[in-house]
Amino acid sequence: MKIIKKVSELQKIALKHLVNKDEIGLVPTMGALHEGHISLISKSVKNDDITIVSIFVNPIQFGQNEDYLKYPRPLEKDLAICKKNHVNYVFVPSAEEMFPRANRTRVEVKGLQDLLCGRFRINHFSGVDTVVAKLFNITFADRAYFGMKDFQQLRIIEKMVKDLNFRTKIVPCEIVREKSGLALSSRNFYLNPEEKESAVLISKTLKLAKEEIKVKSFSAAVKNAVKRISSIKNSRIDYVEAVDFNDLSPVSKNTKKAVLAVAVWIGKTRLIDNIIISKIVRE
Amino acid sequence: MKIIKKVSELQKIALKHLVNKDEIGLVPTMGALHEGHISLISKSVKNDDITIVSIFVNPIQFGQNEDYLKYPRPLEKDLAICKKNHVNYVFVPSAEEMFPRANRTRVEVKGLQDLLCGRFRINHFSGVDTVVAKLFNITFADRAYFGMKDFQQLRIIEKMVKDLNFRTKIVPCEIVREKSGLALSSRNFYLNPEEKESAVLISKTLKLAKEEIKVKSFSAAVKNAVKRISSIKNSRIDYVEAVDFNDLSPVSKNTKKAVLAVAVWIGKTRLIDNIIISKIVRE
Repeated sequence: MKIIKKVSELQKIALKHLVNKDEIGLVPTMGALHEGHISLISKSVKNDDITIVSIFVNPIQFGQNEDYLKYPRPLEKDLAICKKNHVNYVFVPSAEEMFPRANRTRVEVKGLQDLLCGRFRINHFSGVDTVVAKLFNITFADRAYFGMKDFQQLRIIEKMVKDLNFRTKIVPCEIVREKSGLALSSRNFYLNPEEKESAVLISKTLKLAKEEIKVKSFSAAVKNAVKRISSIKNSRIDYVEAVDFNDLSPVSKNTKKAVLAVAVWIGKTRLIDNIIISKIVRE
Repeated sequence: MKIIKKVSELQKIALKHLVNKDEIGLVPTMGALHEGHISLISKSVKNDDITIVSIFVNPIQFGQNEDYLKYPRPLEKDLAICKKNHVNYVFVPSAEEMFPRANRTRVEVKGLQDLLCGRFRINHFSGVDTVVAKLFNITFADRAYFGMKDFQQLRIIEKMVKDLNFRTKIVPCEIVREKSGLALSSRNFYLNPEEKESAVLISKTLKLAKEEIKVKSFSAAVKNAVKRISSIKNSRIDYVEAVDFNDLSPVSKNTKKAVLAVAVWIGKTRLIDNIIISKIVRE
């Protein structure tokens, strides 16, 4: 496993693999790797000739009052996980290497970036799209792997790829959960035991809503979910919304492509989760 | 010479050339090819194994009241020019092929895109950047050729390439002028004989300003240029500005990297031109 810090070095190596007709897999991460990330890595190792994992806490996707500085960075542990899981290259650029002071270019997916999390995290998705576009240009990836927990991120990146004609194919991957149902997230590290008990109720509520929709009215089930999540101890809701899988617009009926998406603060930690509440029909 | 209309077809062909280690040159145009374009094509034919010319009147870089519909589209003549000049592939996608109705993604070079022409043509450069990013992703170009007449465009695209880590190298090309000094432009086709006489005075003024700067104060020379251009018959100035070559910021002294840039309406036709008024030091 090779550790690479420089853009130009990785780009040169990746181009060689491309010319050599190796299929290149990319798993973009912010590190603090957990079983969710490992499931993406495993999928790439299985599908691709070469697996590149990027570990980069991307400053431009954090807001001013967000957790950029305190975001966990257990680099040694992350590298060990990558090695154990047969990663070929780990890309660990500095913030300055990826975003030198004078950088000015941003990729924006208008509309989609302003909904759901975008209402609360201004410029977040533009920061994500920009770093992902850079990673695609640096790695020439045939495939890039994204988890479904960040459902809006996944949909926005799929849209960006289509709109800008990137050659990279996006591979969505199922949410990995603890036995309790809690969706794995690097931000779970922030939770104390009491908060963790609260956090578990998010996924429980989503699951319950999915069941209720089968027997109750759609809007009643969604309303119940909002009520349940707002009554969780230490919680503050950013949103609980049923939206269309394709364009993220609000839905009020059980269409064939609805997702119930949640962003909620447990104490000082912001968590997101979602569940597909109906059969998905891809655009 | 092969004519290609579909994104997927060109992307497949270009990738084959890339894997084959052919060096790929791209000349992005809006058609209505003139000697300026031909100089770009010739440079690519000389430098690269494969030359791709795109001919695409890009709807998203035109404002609502601009000349998108009446922009000249002499396709047969353009194809003949390409063939005569040893182009390998001409890419002539439809507007729908490049920008399907639901497209939402835009590339923006913040700051630079709002100066000079950007003050008068809102969203213009975002439209340019987006289509150029797409063309880079479709062609995997090693080099892309841009004329210095569109000086701000050139600088913005160079910035985009650097910021987003595109592999493509930008090759700036000298302005090609008529004997009269008028910079070649597809929009010159709009000018009637009287307007053309007026238009010639733009480049004459720029040349004169460059001479005056050697003997007068910098600001006096620029002021004289403004005065001369505003007194041209049928003219209306958008801007006459001395700016820094690197960051396009206004300069009031003869730095080592100043450009005198002009956008002026002659009748109903908007023309741009510029001259380097001091030795350029690249960033």
